[in-house]
Amino acid sequence: MELLDAMSWRYAAKKMTGAKVPAEKIDTILESIRLSASSVGLQPYTVIVIENHELKGKIHELACPQPQIVESSHLLVFASWTGLEASQIDTYIQLIANTRGVTVESLTPFADSIKGNILSRTVESRDNWTARQAYIALGSALIAAATEHVDATPIEGFNANALNELLDLPAKGLQSVALLALGYRDEERDFLSKAPKVRRAKEDLFIELA
Amino acid sequence: MELLDAMSWRYAAKKMTGAKVPAEKIDTILESIRLSASSVGLQPYTVIVIENHELKGKIHELACPQPQIVESSHLLVFASWTGLEASQIDTYIQLIANTRGVTVESLTPFADSIKGNILSRTVESRDNWTARQAYIALGSALIAAATEHVDATPIEGFNANALNELLDLPAKGLQSVALLALGYRDEERDFLSKAPKVRRAKEDLFIELA
Repeated sequence: MELLDAMSWRYAAKKMTGAKVPAEKIDTILESIRLSASSVGLQPYTVIVIENHELKGKIHELACPQPQIVESSHLLVFASWTGLEASQIDTYIQLIANTRGVTVESLTPFADSIKGNILSRTVESRDNWTARQAYIALGSALIAAATEHVDATPIEGFNANALNELLDLPAKGLQSVALLALGYRDEERDFLSKAPKVRRAKEDLFIELA
Repeated sequence: MELLDAMSWRYAAKKMTGAKVPAEKIDTILESIRLSASSVGLQPYTVIVIENHELKGKIHELACPQPQIVESSHLLVFASWTGLEASQIDTYIQLIANTRGVTVESLTPFADSIKGNILSRTVESRDNWTARQAYIALGSALIAAATEHVDATPIEGFNANALNELLDLPAKGLQSVALLALGYRDEERDFLSKAPKVRRAKEDLFIELA
């Protein structure tokens, strides 16, 4: 099965060659992010796409420093909305109305249910919720990259506060939650490129209640 | 592009027909979960696969009640590890050693770096971290279902404490974070089955720093 083959092929490359990923492959990966599911469809995140080598160098220093960041073709920063507000839900409701040709008024019960559910939470709880939605999109990007035979290394080990500052994210109501380095594995230099994939056995990962 | 076509086809079905999804399609979806990436590869979650109609009925009552739960073929409960402990990391290290034919000792620096990073966090922070990893797997399952033309509705709106209790999750060191109803959309009864997909425009979702 094609999807599972792609998922078996992928791993988190530790070294990349620096070769450029063609624009149409990047577009496919970004479109998989754009089409991703999210709770109530809100897509409460922004993804920053970085090709600039100097900027990748600065981020590299804030991330352990992991070589894939400067050896990648493109670096994605998944930045989730922080301190989610009613106005952002209203903007989303307007988008639904425009897309489906219905009135905003007809969507009032839906808008109220989202607001009632989300805005009653603490800011920390809202921030954790928006971050989780971004991780669904991260999961999509990993699969899309694999189907395009592009390597993709997710990175959580970075100084989030410093990166937020560097990219001026707080002013945009965003905080960085994960990086994704896109590029090509360097099989010669990466000792993990030939290592068997480690995954928990089916019997251990699933509980079946028939 | 096949993957994007599948992602465009999918939506969160609000009504399902109750028809059974063939076992081989369920297996593909579960295998996509098993192959999913997670931070440091730990896979800190368990997925409960429920076919039992009576049990789905009980869960239905704890989830708003949303009809897809009882109209699904299979219901998945994504349950992330709570209060992650050193022994679980040791078990993972042993799995790596077995899979790759290396000694546990050779993996000590890796084990120590995971422990240093994760165990220093508060329980709440650990629980949020394990939940995020489960959401990557949720993203995989959504895509795998779509490529199999199986409908998949993610559900966050449920009484998590009551569901944890019902499934005896605390005793297993687990907590429920999301449900996924797998089945077939009921196009007649679901007013959303023909509705255009609503997604933020590329210009709004991405910031490109070239």
